Amino acid sequence: MKAEIIAIGTELLTPFRLDTNSLYLTDQLERLGIPVIQKTVVGDDRERLKSAFAEALQRAELVIGIGGLGPTEDDRTREAVAELLGRKLRQNEEIVARMEERFRARGRKMAEVNRRQAMVPEGADWLPNHNGTAPGLWLTTEDERVVLLLPGPPHELKPMFEEECLPRLRPRAPQHAFARKVLKVVGLPESEVEERIAPLYCAVANPETTLLASPGQVEIHLRATGSDTADALRRAEELAERIEQALGDHVFTRGPETLEQVVGLYLMMRGATLAVAESCTGGLVAERLTNVPGSSHYFLGGVVCYSDKLKAKLVGVPATLLRRKGEVSPEVAEALAKGVRRRSGAVLGLGVTGIAGPTGATPDKPVGTVFIALADAHRLRSEKHRFLGDRDRIRWQAAQAALDLIRRKLLK
Amino acid sequence: MKAEIIAIGTELLTPFRLDTNSLYLTDQLERLGIPVIQKTVVGDDRERLKSAFAEALQRAELVIGIGGLGPTEDDRTREAVAELLGRKLRQNEEIVARMEERFRARGRKMAEVNRRQAMVPEGADWLPNHNGTAPGLWLTTEDERVVLLLPGPPHELKPMFEEECLPRLRPRAPQHAFARKVLKVVGLPESEVEERIAPLYCAVANPETTLLASPGQVEIHLRATGSDTADALRRAEELAERIEQALGDHVFTRGPETLEQVVGLYLMMRGATLAVAESCTGGLVAERLTNVPGSSHYFLGGVVCYSDKLKAKLVGVPATLLRRKGEVSPEVAEALAKGVRRRSGAVLGLGVTGIAGPTGATPDKPVGTVFIALADAHRLRSEKHRFLGDRDRIRWQAAQAALDLIRRKLLK
Repeated sequence: MKAEIIAIGTELLTPFRLDTNSLYLTDQLERLGIPVIQKTVVGDDRERLKSAFAEALQRAELVIGIGGLGPTEDDRTREAVAELLGRKLRQNEEIVARMEERFRARGRKMAEVNRRQAMVPEGADWLPNHNGTAPGLWLTTEDERVVLLLPGPPHELKPMFEEECLPRLRPRAPQHAFARKVLKVVGLPESEVEERIAPLYCAVANPETTLLASPGQVEIHLRATGSDTADALRRAEELAERIEQALGDHVFTRGPETLEQVVGLYLMMRGATLAVAESCTGGLVAERLTNVPGSSHYFLGGVVCYSDKLKAKLVGVPATLLRRKGEVSPEVAEALAKGVRRRSGAVLGLGVTGIAGPTGATPDKPVGTVFIALADAHRLRSEKHRFLGDRDRIRWQAAQAALDLIRRKLLK
Repeated sequence: MKAEIIAIGTELLTPFRLDTNSLYLTDQLERLGIPVIQKTVVGDDRERLKSAFAEALQRAELVIGIGGLGPTEDDRTREAVAELLGRKLRQNEEIVARMEERFRARGRKMAEVNRRQAMVPEGADWLPNHNGTAPGLWLTTEDERVVLLLPGPPHELKPMFEEECLPRLRPRAPQHAFARKVLKVVGLPESEVEERIAPLYCAVANPETTLLASPGQVEIHLRATGSDTADALRRAEELAERIEQALGDHVFTRGPETLEQVVGLYLMMRGATLAVAESCTGGLVAERLTNVPGSSHYFLGGVVCYSDKLKAKLVGVPATLLRRKGEVSPEVAEALAKGVRRRSGAVLGLGVTGIAGPTGATPDKPVGTVFIALADAHRLRSEKHRFLGDRDRIRWQAAQAALDLIRRKLLK
C-alpha cells in the first residue's frame, strides 16, 4: 500500500504559506509502514482538484486530501471528489444537527452556508470532527482504493486522524513491522554528535539513522524494520542503547518529550520548585516552562528584568554590583539566581543575562555572550556561553542551555 | 503563462524535511506576474519523475524542477527529463573544465562521479553555478514550453535564478504589472472580518483578495494587476483603504510588522515605557515584546507570577483580594497591572490572569477565561475574554489580546 497527500488551498500556492500537515501525516503513515510516494499542493479549483485526485489514484492505493472543506464557495474539495468518483452529494441531517449543537453551545446561531459542510458523497463514511465544524470523509473507489478527506486546521486534523482513521488503516497496513526511536541531545554541536556516533550507525543498515539539528538541540532518529513489532523495537533499542552510551547524559530523552517537559518531570520527581530571573531571554525560559500543562506544581514564577532598575528592584541585585561588573557578567547572573530564589521561596533559582543582539556588544563581550547561573540553598553554579546566529537563535540557545543547567543539576 | 514547481528528493517525503525553495520561487514568479498553479514533491525515482514532469507540462507553460542534480546514482532528474523529452544526454566539456577548476581552487581533485553533472540534454542551455558544482538546465519543448532545472541548495538556487533565469523569463512574462498589500487585523474573528469586507472585495475581481486566519489574527492579502506598477499599486491601495474603513482600528498594519513590533513602535513614538505581570501566559507577552530588537528602549521588564504567593510578593497583589476574588478575576488582573506599574516605575502596567487549561477550570470560569488589565497613572482598564482551543492557542490568543489592549490605549 502506497499513499499520496494532496494539500488543498490557493493560499498554499502563495509565498506566505506552506503545507506542514503532510509532515504529520507522513510520520503517522510511516509508522504503519505505508510510504508516501508523492505530495501535491493544489489551489481551490475544481478542475485542477479533479485531475490531481485522478492522477494520484493511478499511483497510490490511499490518497489523502487536506483542506478545502470549509463552508464558503472557495472550498471545493467535496464537490471535486464527488464529481470525479461519480457520486451525488447529499445533505446529512445528523451532521447538520451536530453542527447546530456546536454553534448553540457557544451561544451562536449556525449560518446557512455551514450546511455545505454537511454534504456527503453517496457511499462515503463521514468522520466526526470534535474540534471544528467540517467532518472528514472516507470514500472507497470501485477498485478498492481509499480517498480520505481531512480538514486543514491541524488541531482538527490530528485528533480526527488518530481517532477515526488509524483504526481503519491498521488492518490494511503491511504485515512487516516498524519501530522508531528518537534520541534528543542537548549541549553538543551536531558535528560532535556525528563524530561520536557515526561509527555506530554506519555499521548497520537497519535501523536507518537520520540526524536533525536545530538551535541548541540534535535529534537522532532511528527507524527499524523487523519480522514483528517486538523484533523491530529490539533492533531500534539496541542501537539507541549504544548511541546513548557514546553521548552520555547529553541525551535528555529517548521519548517525545521536550527539554522543558523533562525538566518539569525532574522537578516533580524531586518535589522541587523553581523560579527564574531572565534578562536577554526576555521571558522565553518562563514561557517554555509554563507551556507544559501542570507546570504550576513546580514553577513558581519569574522575573523578566530588562532594565538595571528592575534587576535591583524586583530581584535585589545590588546597584553597586551592576555598576562594577556590568549587567552582562557572571556576578549578575549569580545575583539574579540567588535573588529570585530568595524572593520567591523556591528551591532553585535561575538567572540569565547576556547580549542577544543585534546591538549591545562590547569589545570583550560580543553578541551571543550569555551567563547562566543556578542557585539552591547550598550551592551556586554559573556558566559562560558564546552562541552564534541572529537574535532569535541566540535567545533560543540560551534558553536551551538554561533548561539544561537545571536538568543536569537535578540528574545528580 | 502559468508555472508549476516540482521539488525533487526522497528526503522531502519523510516527516522531517519540507521543501521551502518553492516559497522563494513563488514570490519571484509572482512579481513577474506568473502564477504558480501547482506544486509537487516527488522522490528520486525516474519513472515518477517522468510522469510528474509530463503531467505538469500539460497544465503549465513553465515547469521548474528543483534538486536531484547531484553527482550520485540517487540523482535522476537530468535523465528523467531528457528521456521524457526524447533528448540524448551529452557530456559538456566546458562544464567539466569549470568543475575541475572549482575543485582545483580548493586544493582537491574532482571525483569521477561528478562528470555526471556535466551531462546536458541535446538542445538545452546550461546555467553556470557559481556556488556549487551542478549547473542548471533550461530546455524548450517542441510546443515552446520551458523546463527549468535548478540545484536544491538555496544558496545555489537563488543566485542562479536571479542572475540566469530572471533575464530569460522577463520577456516571456505578461506585460501588465503587479502589486501586493497585506492588512493585518486583530480583535475580530475571521467570520466577522469576512462579513464586513466580503461586499467590498467580492465586488471587484482585481485586486484578488485572500483571507488568512491564525489564532487571534486575520491577514487580508490583496494582489492587484495594472497597466504599470503605479496603476497596480493604486488599485491595491484603493481597496486597502476601503477595507480599513470597514474594519476601523482593528487593522494594526498595512505592512510586514508583527503586532509586537507595532506596539513597540507606538511605545517608542509616545516615549512610553511598559512592564507586564503575567500569570496564564507564563512569559509569552514578555517574550514576544523582547523578541523585537531595540525593545530595551521601552520594555522595562515583567513578572511571571504563577503562584499566589509570588503575585503578592513580587507585585503586591493583596492576599485578601486573592482569597476573596480568586486568582482569575478582573480585580486580580487590575491589581497585577497597577502593582507591576508601581514597582517598575513604567508608564504603563499590564496584568494578565486566566485559565489556559487543561486543568484549573471552575463552573463559572471555564478553560479559556482570561482577564487582562492595563494601568497608566490615571486610568485602569480591564477586559474579560473567553478563548477557545488548546493550551497553546489560548495562551497565544491571550497574548495577542494583551498586546492589542496596549496598542489601542496608545492609539488614542
